[in-house]
Amino acid sequence: MPEHTAASRLRLSGLCFLLQTLIILLFAVLARYSPDPCPPQLNCSLRNQDLAFQQPRFQDAHAQVLLSFGLLLALLSRSGPGSVAISILITAFAIQWALLLQGFFYFFLNGKISVGAQSMVSADFCTAAVLISSGAVLGRVSPVQMLLLALLEVPLCTLHEFILLSLMGVRDSGRSLTVHTFGAYFGLMVSRVLYQPHKDRRKREEQRDKGHQTDVFAVFGTIYLWIFWPSFSSSTTAHHDGDNWAVLNTYFSLVASTVATFIFSPLLYEESTPRMVQIQDATLAGTAVMGMAGEMLVTPFGALIAGFLVGLICPLGFRFFTPVLRSRLKIQDTCGVHNTHGLPGVLGALLGTLLTLLATADTYGYRLELVFPLVAQGSRTVPEQALLQLGTLPLTLLLAALGGCLTGAVLKIRVPRCSPDGQCKENAAFREVPEEGSEPSANGKEELGISTLV
Amino acid sequence: MPEHTAASRLRLSGLCFLLQTLIILLFAVLARYSPDPCPPQLNCSLRNQDLAFQQPRFQDAHAQVLLSFGLLLALLSRSGPGSVAISILITAFAIQWALLLQGFFYFFLNGKISVGAQSMVSADFCTAAVLISSGAVLGRVSPVQMLLLALLEVPLCTLHEFILLSLMGVRDSGRSLTVHTFGAYFGLMVSRVLYQPHKDRRKREEQRDKGHQTDVFAVFGTIYLWIFWPSFSSSTTAHHDGDNWAVLNTYFSLVASTVATFIFSPLLYEESTPRMVQIQDATLAGTAVMGMAGEMLVTPFGALIAGFLVGLICPLGFRFFTPVLRSRLKIQDTCGVHNTHGLPGVLGALLGTLLTLLATADTYGYRLELVFPLVAQGSRTVPEQALLQLGTLPLTLLLAALGGCLTGAVLKIRVPRCSPDGQCKENAAFREVPEEGSEPSANGKEELGISTLV
Amino acid sequence: MPEHTAASRLRLSGLCFLLQTLIILLFAVLARYSPDPCPPQLNCSLRNQDLAFQQPRFQDAHAQVLLSFGLLLALLSRSGPGSVAISILITAFAIQWALLLQGFFYFFLNGKISVGAQSMVSADFCTAAVLISSGAVLGRVSPVQMLLLALLEVPLCTLHEFILLSLMGVRDSGRSLTVHTFGAYFGLMVSRVLYQPHKDRRKREEQRDKGHQTDVFAVFGTIYLWIFWPSFSSSTTAHHDGDNWAVLNTYFSLVASTVATFIFSPLLYEESTPRMVQIQDATLAGTAVMGMAGEMLVTPFGALIAGFLVGLICPLGFRFFTPVLRSRLKIQDTCGVHNTHGLPGVLGALLGTLLTLLATADTYGYRLELVFPLVAQGSRTVPEQALLQLGTLPLTLLLAALGGCLTGAVLKIRVPRCSPDGQCKENAAFREVPEEGSEPSANGKEELGISTLV
Repeated sequence: MPEHTAASRLRLSGLCFLLQTLIILLFAVLARYSPDPCPPQLNCSLRNQDLAFQQPRFQDAHAQVLLSFGLLLALLSRSGPGSVAISILITAFAIQWALLLQGFFYFFLNGKISVGAQSMVSADFCTAAVLISSGAVLGRVSPVQMLLLALLEVPLCTLHEFILLSLMGVRDSGRSLTVHTFGAYFGLMVSRVLYQPHKDRRKREEQRDKGHQTDVFAVFGTIYLWIFWPSFSSSTTAHHDGDNWAVLNTYFSLVASTVATFIFSPLLYEESTPRMVQIQDATLAGTAVMGMAGEMLVTPFGALIAGFLVGLICPLGFRFFTPVLRSRLKIQDTCGVHNTHGLPGVLGALLGTLLTLLATADTYGYRLELVFPLVAQGSRTVPEQALLQLGTLPLTLLLAALGGCLTGAVLKIRVPRCSPDGQCKENAAFREVPEEGSEPSANGKEELGISTLV
Repeated sequence: MPEHTAASRLRLSGLCFLLQTLIILLFAVLARYSPDPCPPQLNCSLRNQDLAFQQPRFQDAHAQVLLSFGLLLALLSRSGPGSVAISILITAFAIQWALLLQGFFYFFLNGKISVGAQSMVSADFCTAAVLISSGAVLGRVSPVQMLLLALLEVPLCTLHEFILLSLMGVRDSGRSLTVHTFGAYFGLMVSRVLYQPHKDRRKREEQRDKGHQTDVFAVFGTIYLWIFWPSFSSSTTAHHDGDNWAVLNTYFSLVASTVATFIFSPLLYEESTPRMVQIQDATLAGTAVMGMAGEMLVTPFGALIAGFLVGLICPLGFRFFTPVLRSRLKIQDTCGVHNTHGLPGVLGALLGTLLTLLATADTYGYRLELVFPLVAQGSRTVPEQALLQLGTLPLTLLLAALGGCLTGAVLKIRVPRCSPDGQCKENAAFREVPEEGSEPSANGKEELGISTLV
Repeated sequence: MPEHTAASRLRLSGLCFLLQTLIILLFAVLARYSPDPCPPQLNCSLRNQDLAFQQPRFQDAHAQVLLSFGLLLALLSRSGPGSVAISILITAFAIQWALLLQGFFYFFLNGKISVGAQSMVSADFCTAAVLISSGAVLGRVSPVQMLLLALLEVPLCTLHEFILLSLMGVRDSGRSLTVHTFGAYFGLMVSRVLYQPHKDRRKREEQRDKGHQTDVFAVFGTIYLWIFWPSFSSSTTAHHDGDNWAVLNTYFSLVASTVATFIFSPLLYEESTPRMVQIQDATLAGTAVMGMAGEMLVTPFGALIAGFLVGLICPLGFRFFTPVLRSRLKIQDTCGVHNTHGLPGVLGALLGTLLTLLATADTYGYRLELVFPLVAQGSRTVPEQALLQLGTLPLTLLLAALGGCLTGAVLKIRVPRCSPDGQCKENAAFREVPEEGSEPSANGKEELGISTLV
């Protein structure tokens, strides 16, 4: 059916052209660079301070693509380079789309969206949520469906973030809820709606794939996360001093969860040491759990305990919970986002609630003003804040589930529009080496590992 | 002919020894570290500001190797690890050589070259041009020839940059002309002079090589470019605020060109999604086009449009223009530098000229002083500046072509000096696995892909 | 003997659980985050300066994992991904353990260890020494033994550093002695004590393994070292201006040693260009030699000469000295740490002594205060300082040798406790692909390369 494949290629081309043209038009009409708050002529007295603060803002912009690409590398180790092209496409699209939509909520001035380093960082958080969701369905949807998923998830994610952070005044600096939990459960619901039983068998085979390629990506993914994630997860804390603790807490959590992987993984998988992919998962989980609590923890051992527990839970989840998800709840989870983002995100939110309850002016000192400005100003009591922090968890799960159902339903509509088995045809085209004339070599074998997955 | 290979090895050893000793002697006689502009005893009032500004300068030094290595990774994905050793050699040599030569032009004080972070950045721009040129001939010249190419290109590149930026007062902060265009056309002319028809056939075979290794390098190359390039291309902008826009414009261009790759690549190559190498090429092209215009564009959508167009043109160039180059103009272009650096650089220069024409005090505000200091001071009108910006394009092409011819001629002289087929012998030594006793495995097959290229 | 493997897995699990629980308890009792030196209420006049200085401190924290991971990548290229999991485990454990122990020496206030960005950097230096030591025995000890090595080396390394830097007032900003020399000779002595003649034969076979995987890791390791190492080796210099020279000196040394590799490697190994692993070794050696001298050198050509010489010596060491070490001294050196860390570290210490002798107020200017504060204050003469710098070299070698013997003896005790050939069984479990049903493919072949090593 070459003409069909040609049609699907044409559809992807057309959709990309349409979306990018639309985005350019919207940017042309709506978006402008944010003006410099303090041009040199004014010689404002804040100039020096401004410069000192500018540096971190610039670094944030630099970090802008870091989070997404860290996730990308993490996905790669589970899905192979075959699907990296599509991941980069949705990253590139979602960043632009999120810049526009978030601009309406946060940076709308005089009828124009003000674009700057800060809005780039916000947009990247949203892109990260999209990438996490894509991890749940990677390899089982076509590129066109993936683009539609990004198109639909970005507005929902933006709305969700706006409700939580701006309307309810909840603290979630490292985005346990708005990125990790929302992204994971959104993706899982999409996966549930798109469930196809005959693909289930393939998934089990893929489990056995332990190619070298995979480990190379996992090694680099892990190193990348260790280096860049801690500084990222603190990029939106209110103050520079607050930064430091969020960074250190994330480090400690990550370190403890890495050691913890070596406790259960060898027992569960009957291997002497965990595979790199498992270490990478523990690293991801260790950072996700520090999302909300990172800036609230005032002692290192709290972060160590949290990381340790999540590092124990993550391999248990892969061993016992993922099969239950698949067989009972009919949710396939390609990259295991439930264990690395969903569950740790929920735990992080619960931990954050607990820490909010314990927040006193004594333990926080002047940092209370930075972490809980509304509490410090007296317009809200500590239990009220804690109740709000807790209340956002079911709200997030509800919004993610509803949004995922809706998106899954929309993606499903499209399938019969092309052909009964159209999806598989498109997926087959992911393969990198054409099938004809390929030697039965290890290269071919690794290929196989990827193609069964894709 | 083992004694011949020994001779070629000895020649490379000797040349390296000679050049490095020469460079050490020149540094001993000529170069000193630049003194601190403001030692603590003076307690100069600018101290605080100086510290704030020091940070970016330090970061620039940090970025020093980033650009070159980004390019290196990009080259790798097209040439394989077989030629990475030689690329690192010319990087290491060209940085030192450029530091010395550029020191004469820019940092010569009291009979000594003043070496500092700033001169490192300048030297690295020149090294990047050498790496781009090498991309056109990679795999078809010997290591000794490659070193000679660097030896000859660095002075020409330095002279060219000095004429453009210092004498003519042209703005080219991200080096569309002085790095991308100059490097690409210089390399293409060298390739033209060294054209050998019997190697043409091999090139076509290599086109089919789609090994895994290639994609791994392309994945990391793309991620590297996304992360580091935007901050690099703004490292020489005059002012810290100007930075921000150049960074953001480069991001937008890069994002749009990535999406644009998904429009033509699938149609041209009959694959559902573009290969990673194509996405990497689009990323490179998207940054090259923002070289001159990056600090001039005052709206995000301009960068989006430029990136979108160049992302459409780049795959077209690979599909239709590269074969024409090869068959009609007898120019082989190993890594496709014409499509990723040459053409986007020219387009970037044209875009920069257009933007210069449109520059008014209204749209730029106080930034006019930073971007076009001569215009702001009144010593030059806007049309004059635009005319100069435009005039540098033919000048660059002329200098690059002449320099490339000259260098190619010098490299050609050396070939008969060793033996009629000496070149191939040397190249064969690039292979990493010795031929005897190697299994007919996938490893061997990938080898093959590289060796046909080398 | 599956039950035995199960026992060894259980032992690793148990040890990880025990150590991590112990560390959490110790942190809970002893460690607290360091309070902010200047909270906003105080509005201290140093606030602005503080912010400007905060940035580098933050960057240091960021760099915290960089050094270790650079080393990790370097190890990988020699040992393959099979042992990366265990390297990450000891990194995660050693960082926490070093934070605690170093806290007693440096950051102990009011009965609590003060944890901050600065202590993270100190802990990472110690972790780097552990990783270097592990490079000497990698592949020949079990994960449990590796953990014990880290457990024992961290206190010795901390004690050694405290004696040198705090008690004796020796300058070693880039840690030529305390990290490179100590780590290398410690590891070599452990390797000597654990010497097993029947494993010697395997090592020689492994020498021939030149897999692709290896080169991929070496490419990324080299690029990583070029990018991050210079800024790291200056992270503990006293002053921001001093930074600059240490960074530039490290660059120059690294560049020169890279070119120097191309002089001897081709002659010694009869290959046209050096393999990537050799270039990476030269890069490591070039940075190790700048450890002590980096902030003392006042001219670029000094760094070029030092890098050049060490780049010549490193391949000679691999060719002639490593076999002698193995056959005569019965010291196996898996990753060649003697050539890349031990010898360059010793040379760096000698160079540092020489430069200390030459230090005068004329050549250093106000920097004398920063580099040699005791000399500038007049409490110590230049020859005294030089004598101390020199005296630390035999002290370091003695402490490293004694510590290595002790640690090796402890590791050896454990071997008979499990089974006569227990070690091999555990090691076999490192393999990533199960032996049964694996095709005789290239993948299998690369496997072999790793398994003979492991």
